Amino acid sequence: MRQFIILGHDVPVTDDFSLSDLAGGAGRLDVLCRCVGAAFFLSHGLREDVRVHLVVGDAFTIRFNGSALRRLYPDERTIASRIRDALAQRDEAIGHMPADVSAGMELYRMGFEATLERVARDGTVVELHEAGEPLVEAEPPSDPIFVLSDHHDFTDEEATLLANHAEKRLRVGPEILHADQTITVTHNWLDTAGYQQY
Amino acid sequence: MRQFIILGHDVPVTDDFSLSDLAGGAGRLDVLCRCVGAAFFLSHGLREDVRVHLVVGDAFTIRFNGSALRRLYPDERTIASRIRDALAQRDEAIGHMPADVSAGMELYRMGFEATLERVARDGTVVELHEAGEPLVEAEPPSDPIFVLSDHHDFTDEEATLLANHAEKRLRVGPEILHADQTITVTHNWLDTAGYQQY
Repeated sequence: MRQFIILGHDVPVTDDFSLSDLAGGAGRLDVLCRCVGAAFFLSHGLREDVRVHLVVGDAFTIRFNGSALRRLYPDERTIASRIRDALAQRDEAIGHMPADVSAGMELYRMGFEATLERVARDGTVVELHEAGEPLVEAEPPSDPIFVLSDHHDFTDEEATLLANHAEKRLRVGPEILHADQTITVTHNWLDTAGYQQY
Repeated sequence: MRQFIILGHDVPVTDDFSLSDLAGGAGRLDVLCRCVGAAFFLSHGLREDVRVHLVVGDAFTIRFNGSALRRLYPDERTIASRIRDALAQRDEAIGHMPADVSAGMELYRMGFEATLERVARDGTVVELHEAGEPLVEAEPPSDPIFVLSDHHDFTDEEATLLANHAEKRLRVGPEILHADQTITVTHNWLDTAGYQQY
């Protein structure tokens, strides 16, 4: 399984934002929507063996499970609408019990630290770093977990948490990419490496 | 220079569509917007040495020139708004004279064939094909021109035109990706191949 934890620092933890102002009032939710799209969509289908964990305002985590997702489309507005629906259920997420939002989506009352600790049990946490090993030379880890940030850099606290959990440090390329572009490149790297007949 | 020609089959050639219905009434303009974003944006800047040619309904071509673009942001709605503004100037595009839409954007009254013939003079046309040489094994061509289609396959006529102009046939990966994902992967391939210190 491939997993992606994505930190949204400015996205409101309420559901009272407009779908017509994703890049403004919704705190660059457009970035997170493109990440979800890049993580799940292929040209004619969905990557079922993928999970995405969107950490919103370090207070809630929306988990998308590829094997159960239904009625998700790749345009930003549709994905944002599903995220807004999830955040509308925030009072139902109590303790470690998630709110069941819709097929393949759950909302947890968990910030970055709790989410990272929980997800890290199931695979290899990868830190993407300018000083990491170039992707093209690296051996893909089993069950990789990539941690990415929205349009902001990681805070010092987040960077420390990530470094403490990371078992591998990789570099995607000489150019610094957006989070969604990074997801696309890592998918392609894993697809290519894991496919002997390619 | 890297160039991308992208065919939008269902996008209206008028400007009377809603920015809130890109995936519906605007004929999957969301796909083309993500392609423009993937072609130009880096995390902290814009790829200046890139041109994108959006062929809309085989009647008009919107040319984006990375070295001159201003006030473009990566969210779908903003890019769609710029495309709509361009299409609003369609009566100003006469013969081979483009309408000057805004900084870095021009609208031509040209369909796919005329655009391909014109762009092909300035580089190496690449056909992305399941039977092509795997990207990871191929040598990057000089001034590559990639031709991509929206959510539809190429028509037989388009495929023939492309095959007649293509000097190289490449395969991006074992999975068939969306056009915008393909752009991201090819950029990363060219970035990595061209950067010796990487």
